[in-house]
Parts: sequence; structure tokens; C-alpha cells
Amino acid sequence: MTDTLISSATREVIIGFERPFVIIGERINPTGRKLLAEEMKNGDYSRVESDALAQVAAGAQMLDVNAGIPLADEPRILAEAIQLVQSLTDVPLSIDSSIVAALEAGLSVYQGKPLVNSVTGEEDRLETVLPLVKKYGAAVVAISNDETGISEDPNVRFAVAKKIVERAQDYGIPASDVVVDPLVMPVGALNDAGRQVMSLVRRLREELKVNTTCGASNFSFGLPNRHGMNAAFLSMAIGAGMTSAITNPLHEPEMAAIKGANVVMGHDPNCVNWIKTFREPAAEGSDEARRAGRRRRRNA
Amino acid sequence: MTDTLISSATREVIIGFERPFVIIGERINPTGRKLLAEEMKNGDYSRVESDALAQVAAGAQMLDVNAGIPLADEPRILAEAIQLVQSLTDVPLSIDSSIVAALEAGLSVYQGKPLVNSVTGEEDRLETVLPLVKKYGAAVVAISNDETGISEDPNVRFAVAKKIVERAQDYGIPASDVVVDPLVMPVGALNDAGRQVMSLVRRLREELKVNTTCGASNFSFGLPNRHGMNAAFLSMAIGAGMTSAITNPLHEPEMAAIKGANVVMGHDPNCVNWIKTFREPAAEGSDEARRAGRRRRRNA
Repeated sequence: MTDTLISSATREVIIGFERPFVIIGERINPTGRKLLAEEMKNGDYSRVESDALAQVAAGAQMLDVNAGIPLADEPRILAEAIQLVQSLTDVPLSIDSSIVAALEAGLSVYQGKPLVNSVTGEEDRLETVLPLVKKYGAAVVAISNDETGISEDPNVRFAVAKKIVERAQDYGIPASDVVVDPLVMPVGALNDAGRQVMSLVRRLREELKVNTTCGASNFSFGLPNRHGMNAAFLSMAIGAGMTSAITNPLHEPEMAAIKGANVVMGHDPNCVNWIKTFREPAAEGSDEARRAGRRRRRNA
Repeated sequence: MTDTLISSATREVIIGFERPFVIIGERINPTGRKLLAEEMKNGDYSRVESDALAQVAAGAQMLDVNAGIPLADEPRILAEAIQLVQSLTDVPLSIDSSIVAALEAGLSVYQGKPLVNSVTGEEDRLETVLPLVKKYGAAVVAISNDETGISEDPNVRFAVAKKIVERAQDYGIPASDVVVDPLVMPVGALNDAGRQVMSLVRRLREELKVNTTCGASNFSFGLPNRHGMNAAFLSMAIGAGMTSAITNPLHEPEMAAIKGANVVMGHDPNCVNWIKTFREPAAEGSDEARRAGRRRRRNA
């Protein structure tokens, strides 16, 4: 049983085998969001602010913060965004950049123990990112590709994950602080994509004893009803042992699938969260709610 | 790898480890449907007819037919309903009764190789139902309870299933013609209900090498948003290896979860069924459909 503790100044979240699934909100990311990119570049963080609050309200237990904007001062912007988000909410953060200087800038201002997103199996990444993770006492997302790219062979992806976990240990980072992303392929392109993820998640859990995460929406790339497909994929990945995902908590089908999966896994005792989520909104506009409304008006 | 072949006079359906999940439509069942019970008792099968057609149109690959009406001539009614349904559709049927004479009446008129629903681990049931299943060359649903009732201990339920499979073999019925129902408990009453089913399905598949089925909706008994919970449960059960379910194909959340699970399992090559299901209805009323409509009108 593996627990990965992530924290802010005042709140802890544990990603773990016997814990409810952890949703890491993905929205604070200018990649593919031109308007957000332009605003962040010009020091306007109003949308970062609203995205942070909306995702927490929707049930994200952590937020990913990315400031990858071409030709911008990414380290400064990432640090500013992190400070802003930490002033607004107490959920722990994932510091997301492919630029080491930006990761360090983010780490240097972060309050608590963050998740660094990410390190790959490429030698130069291992040698630069892992010492930073150790220096700041962080946890890290390990993405199972290396210099040769992303292998379509799940055994190769497992071997890359294993190498990263071992290298992390060489730097003094325990396996429990490495959260592996087995890489989700689009099933429209690779028929075996779903089975690969499920089998990899089981092996990562049983053999490497690490927590796992993924960018789930890549699975449904190119298909109709992507939310429906993501929902099926997420609940099945959780059934196979996946313990977190970087995803959009504002999408209701995916959130229902995750909450349902928590119940099926026995991680929502007495179905308290399920009942809280679905009893209240269902009552709005229902016959019962209308009757109650009439009663209230009569009694007023 | 186990295949269970079920057939009508002209069509075969295979429930199997490496096959798309088989949906057995549950609607033709007067239990809890007063109006249907009254009609069937009086020889009015119009609702049986419409339920049969609607379920097949919604994607049921098989239909369950039950005529359990208190104080009615169940053998005659079941046989009539089966003959009617077989005249309307070529999907194979599951003949559903707790009365042995009704099972025999249904079997005697059935065209093809049906699924008998069901035998339990009770001695008198084993001794009366299994010879019938053998005599008519049918397959059978094995429900994992016995004289002592339904055990909350999944090991006991597994042992009962094993006993039924072994007894079936004594009667010359191969394990591939026994489809085990591991019994789904309401998760609102038993927090471990989901994990029990997933672990039982894996064991039934790996140790007994049998196909599995279930009445999925029992899982969500007493909870709000039952369709959402059934959807998560079904996709996760399929991920664990469940190969069929007796369920209502008219419920869209469950059907989307099953179709999504088929994709995740690699059992919908090129996502053909997923795309067929969701591209067409999504296009209706969409901007694209409206534009196409305008083009058609302009060109008319």
C-alpha cells in the first residue's frame, strides 16, 4: 500500500492505493488556450483566478499550474501564477513545466510539498529534474517515455518507468514520491490502448508499488462523445488501480464516473460523497422541490 | 478463453472472454410490473411484443423472457411468450423461471440453443434443472447461492459457483455452457459490494474459466442517480472480466458505459460501434446538421 503525500501550507492530500481517486485540475494551462496565454503574458491573471476557484468548487483536490507560453518569461509567470493560486485556495499544486528554470522558480516560491510535473526517462531530464525534486522535498510525476520517444510497446513503457523510479531512489527520492504516468494513447489510433493502460497500471502498482496518474482525455482523441468515452476509460482505469488523473473537473460525465468508481472501489464509505453530489442537484426542479417551494411560500 | 454459444433458429450470439459484452434485455418480466402481469395473464402479449422490439432496437443481443405471475398458468404463458418473441425477432433468448415445469415448457417450444435462467446451488434445483439443461442442449445461468441463502462472504459464493460448475459437468454440461452470476449486492448496504464482484469475476474467469453475468442494477439500490452508478459499476465489471449482463438496454447511461467499456477492452475494432452510436444522434440538431439541412433545401 503506497501513499504519496502532497501538501499546501495548510492542507494535505494523499494519493494512495486505498484512498479516493485524486483529481488534479488541468485548466490552468495556456497550451491551446490563446486568450489565456495572451493574458498571462501581459500579467493578467484574472482567468487563472477564476479557473482555480471553479475547479476547486467542482471537486478538484489538487490543481496543475502550467505557464508554457512561447517567447514569454515562463519562470517568472509560473512563479507568479503559483503564488496567486496559493493565495486563493489551499489545495496543493502540481508545478507543470518542461523548462527546468521554470520548475525551480515555481518550487522556490511554493508553500508546502508540491508535485513536480514532470520528469521523463531522458538522461538530461533525470539529471536536472530529480536533484530539484530532492532539494525541495517534492514528489514527481514520471512520464514513461525516453530519448527514443513514446513506445507503443507497454513493456518498454514499463521499463522506462522502472528506470525513473530507480534513478529517483539513487537521488534519495522514495518510490512513494514518484507518481507514474503510463501514457495514454488514443484508442482510435491504437485498438489496444485501453488494455495497455489497465495492464500497465496493475504492473506499476504490484511490481513497482507506485501511484499512477494520466491525462485521461487523450484516450478519446478523434472520437465522438469524448466525455462518455473518457468516463468509461476513467472508471475502468480506477478499477485497474489508477490513483489520480490530471483532468478537467468541470466535465460532469467524467466526474460522475470517478465518483461512481470511488463507490465501487469501496473508497466512499456509506456512499456519502455520491449521495451528497447527486441528491441535491437532482432535487432542484423536481416535483418534490416544487412541492416544498409551494409549502414554503404558503407558510411565508 | 471461453466461448458460450447461444442461438435462435437463425442467429448465434457468443458470450466470451474476447468478445463484445452481451446485453440480455431484462424488460419482458412481469415481476413488479402489475399492468404487464395482468395483460399476460389475460393472453394480451402486445406489451411483450413492443418490449421485445424496443430492446432489440436499443442494442440487446439477447432477451430474457420471464412469465412469473402469481396464480397464473406460468408454463403455458412462458411458452406462448417465447413463441411470440421468436416470431418477432431472431435474437436468442434466456428462458427465465423459478418453476421447473415452466422452464421445460419454454425449452420444449424454443427454436435454437437457449440460456436457461437459472439454477442455484440448492440440491433440489441442481437435480431438477441440470438434467433439463442437458436434455435440451441448453446453456445455463448459475446463481451462486444455496440452501443457506446468499452469503455475504465472496469465498462462499465462489465455492457455490464451483459446486454448480462441477455438478453441471457430472450431468455432461461443459463449464463453457455455465454462465455464473456472482450476485451483486447493494453497495449502499455493503461497502465492499463492488470489490467483491470485481474479485469474484476475476476468480471465476481465471480459476473456473466460466463466463459471467449479473443483474447490475441491484448494485445501486437505494442511491440517487442510479443510472450513473450502474454505468460506473458496469464498465468496471467489464474491466474485471464480466462478459454479459441482464439489464435494461433502454437506459442510455448504462449502454454508453457498456459500449465505452467494449472500446477500452479492445472489443470494438476501429471503434466502429462507438462511432456509429454517437456520431449520428449527435449530428441531429447540431450546427452541422442544420447547415446540411439548409444546403439540401437550397439544392431542392
